[in-house]
Order: sequence, then structure tokens, then C-alpha cells
Amino acid sequence: MTTDSRRILVIGIGAGDPDHLTLAAVKAMRRSDVFFFVGKGTEKASLIDLRRYLLDEHVPNPCRVVEVDDPRRDRVRRQDTATYLAAVADWRGRRAEVYELLIRDELSPGDTGAFLVWGDPGLYDGTLGILADVQQRSGMAIDVDVIPGISSASALAARHGITLNRVGGPVHFTPGRRLTEICPNDGGDVVVLLDADDAFTRIHGDGVWIYWGAYLGTPHELLVSGALDEVADRIRRLRAEARARHGWIMDTYLLRITAPHADQR
Amino acid sequence: MTTDSRRILVIGIGAGDPDHLTLAAVKAMRRSDVFFFVGKGTEKASLIDLRRYLLDEHVPNPCRVVEVDDPRRDRVRRQDTATYLAAVADWRGRRAEVYELLIRDELSPGDTGAFLVWGDPGLYDGTLGILADVQQRSGMAIDVDVIPGISSASALAARHGITLNRVGGPVHFTPGRRLTEICPNDGGDVVVLLDADDAFTRIHGDGVWIYWGAYLGTPHELLVSGALDEVADRIRRLRAEARARHGWIMDTYLLRITAPHADQR
Repeated sequence: MTTDSRRILVIGIGAGDPDHLTLAAVKAMRRSDVFFFVGKGTEKASLIDLRRYLLDEHVPNPCRVVEVDDPRRDRVRRQDTATYLAAVADWRGRRAEVYELLIRDELSPGDTGAFLVWGDPGLYDGTLGILADVQQRSGMAIDVDVIPGISSASALAARHGITLNRVGGPVHFTPGRRLTEICPNDGGDVVVLLDADDAFTRIHGDGVWIYWGAYLGTPHELLVSGALDEVADRIRRLRAEARARHGWIMDTYLLRITAPHADQR
Repeated sequence: MTTDSRRILVIGIGAGDPDHLTLAAVKAMRRSDVFFFVGKGTEKASLIDLRRYLLDEHVPNPCRVVEVDDPRRDRVRRQDTATYLAAVADWRGRRAEVYELLIRDELSPGDTGAFLVWGDPGLYDGTLGILADVQQRSGMAIDVDVIPGISSASALAARHGITLNRVGGPVHFTPGRRLTEICPNDGGDVVVLLDADDAFTRIHGDGVWIYWGAYLGTPHELLVSGALDEVADRIRRLRAEARARHGWIMDTYLLRITAPHADQR
């Protein structure tokens, strides 16, 4: 790093419980000059509230917060994969423009800016990809440091008191839209994230168990576990109600498959 | 919980960096009466040193530490899966005996005991399974609470500045022994843990990239990334040297597959 570099800290803040912050995250926050809060549409209020709470709680020195709106992403249900990837690429390009302006205009060379990332920056978060795009297109000297966080999958396992894998076995992480393709037919364990569409309702079978959690670690936390065929309707109802009440939902689940199952697309 | 229950806290302490401890983990440690340190053969010294450091650093009130040897597990290279599972089940049974005695003899009803678990208790750690066995066989009333930790996979991604998944894609976690079976031939991302046997040397192809890390977050940290065909020998040599020097190794890697590859068993 030269002193002319802008330094960016990408800090994982855990999946909702303010106490899931690590000591490294607290230290990283305390050496940041500027915090970038990028709003996520309807999720915005609650997510930004948590970030503000973490700053108030852990950063005694004055710091600057720059808040911007996230470019809107078109969300279409059950797109095909090519359409989905094109929409994500377009959205990511527009986010890169926003991030580039933020870093260029709000951060002087030699200063440190921070993004506070929900969960773990290494799992299903776009910040690192966008920063790589910014570096490539802008030619700015940017040093990126990542502070890992508690992922929603770890939080889910902890709240249910289970391990995600079984002894000696693999465990697959997938976005909801890829679930039916990933779900091993002969038994296995699958963690599903970013499920906009009740993907679990497309899996059927006696031998499938679900461990579901929403708003993990927050006062609104919801937990359900049971045989999938028995609890799927209840989870679908809870998700719809919670999404209507809060304006957004962030949830995760594990499917534990112990016998052949059928999926219906 | 009744006041007669024994309370056990299973606390994730992260993958090696003492600052990966969460605020929740610090709070949990401070409300524990007894800490159980279960030694793991040759790994014992360094792992127990880290735990003692965390106690000295974060637990101001007096607490009791009970240290026991872990039952030895027979490690045979390239066992078939049935032999492997039988060996694990046998070892787990002997561990359950040890844990049952610890909890019965060293913890009074109403008291709180803690296990400090490397990484995240929800990913490739046996503590929760053993405690479930203890509850089943002993009839003791035990309340188990889990505090999630930074997994070695999250630490690996952070140190390499990458995400484990690609946009919209799945990521598979597997023990080394299941790698060749899990490795998607047509592209995909695979995190490998518990690889005793250089499983990555059985994967070949131009389109395979590896991000490897050992002793993550410690002063002994090793990081290598590159095209697998080009760096596999170097990683194999580093692993052998490090294992000889430290007496144990704990490492993790991501294989990022972008084109068809061949595996040789």
C-alpha cells in the first residue's frame, strides 16, 4: 500500500444480532474515517438502523456517515438463469458507478472508508465483486481489507442447536432459485439463502427435514423446524405475514434429506 | 430450563485469530463457571494455548478449567466410507463417555460449563453431536446453547479477499475424503475442510483455481492461490513442511472450477 491509496474495509457485522460483531470488526470500525451506508430499497430502514446502532455503541470517536440509495434491481419471479444473470450484471454495473463516486468523492487518498456488510462478506454478498469492478474501471489505487462475519447459516445452525453437515458428509449452499437442481436426491444437506420464491415448496418427501429461521438474532426472530411436508405450509404463511409486516424478509434454511424425495418444478 | 439443569455453552472462537471472537462469545465466556478443554493429541498444545489466552484476556472473574485428554482416534489414510464412519462412531462413543463424566462430575446442577470450539460449532465440529449423545445416554437434564463463530471458510475468503460463491451460484462444502465425488465437472465452487490426504492433487485441469490457507489468522498463517496445476506441488510441500514443524496442520481451501477438469482417484 502506498500512502496515496484509499483503504476500504469490508466489515462483516453478522446476521442480525448486534453481539455477533467480532472484536476485529469493532477495531476495524474504530479505524475508519467514513462509513458508506448503501440503502437496499424497502429493507433500508431496519438495516441502516442496525448499522447506526453499531456505530453509536462501538465508535467513540467522531466519524462521517455517507448514505446513498442503492440502484433499484428489477426482481422478476422465476426468471431463467440467463435473464437473471443479465439483470444482476446490469445492477452490479450501476452499483459500481455509485461506489466509484462514493470512493472518489468522499474519501481522500490515504483515508479509510468502511462498508458494514450483513452476515459474512464471503458468502452471498456482492460488495467485494463491486469493489473489484470499481478498481478495474476507475484506475484508483484502492486497498481492500475484509473482516469476516457470522453468516446467517452459522446463526441458523446455532439457534437450532445443530451442525449444518452430518459426520463426514458434504453440505451444499445454494440460492433458492437453484435449489431443485442442487438438492441431492439420495440424501444430503442443503443450506438455502436468498429464496425469494418459497423454493422449499418444490421439494417433497417423507425423508426431508427443514430447519428454518428468519430475522435471526433480532427481536423479530422466527424459527421453525420439522418434517418438510408437515411444516412447509406454516413456513410459507409465516414468510408472507412477516414480509407484509416488516416490508422485507431475510431468512435461511437447511434441508436435511435422509431418503429419496421428489421435486416438482 | 429448570434450576436443576446443567447448562452447557458451546462457544465458537473462530479459526485462529483471537480477534475473531464475537462480543456474544465474550459475554458467554464471562457467564461460565467451568471451562472444559479437551485436548486433541498433537494439536493439543497450540489449541489449548489459544483458549487460555482468550480466558486471560476476556474473563476477569475467577473460573475453573478442567483439562482432559481426548480419546485417540485411529486415522487410516484412504479408508473406505463404511470403515471411516465406523471409526468415527467408535471415537464419538468414547468421547461421549468422557464428556458425560466431565459434565456429571465437574458441573453441579444449575451451573454453567463451556466448550470453546475452534471455528464455528455448526460446521464440521463434533461437539453438538457428542452432547446430544450424552443427553440421550445419561438422562441428565442439560440445556445446550450455541454461540456461532467465524468458520475457517469465512476466514479463508476474507484473507484472499474473495467470495466463496459466484453470483447466483451454489458452493459446496466437503471433507477432503469426499472431494472427487463432490467436485462438479462442469464448473462450480467447492470448499474443502479436513483434508488429511492432499485431496486437491487428485483434481486436474486448466480451469481449476485454488485459494488455500493454513493456520488462518495466526502468526503462522500461510496463503497460496493460483492455477491448481501450477501451485499444487508447492501447496503439498508447504503442508508437509508445516505439519512437520508444528506437529499438526489446520487448513482449508476453495477450488473454483471454470472449465471441465479430470479427476484421478
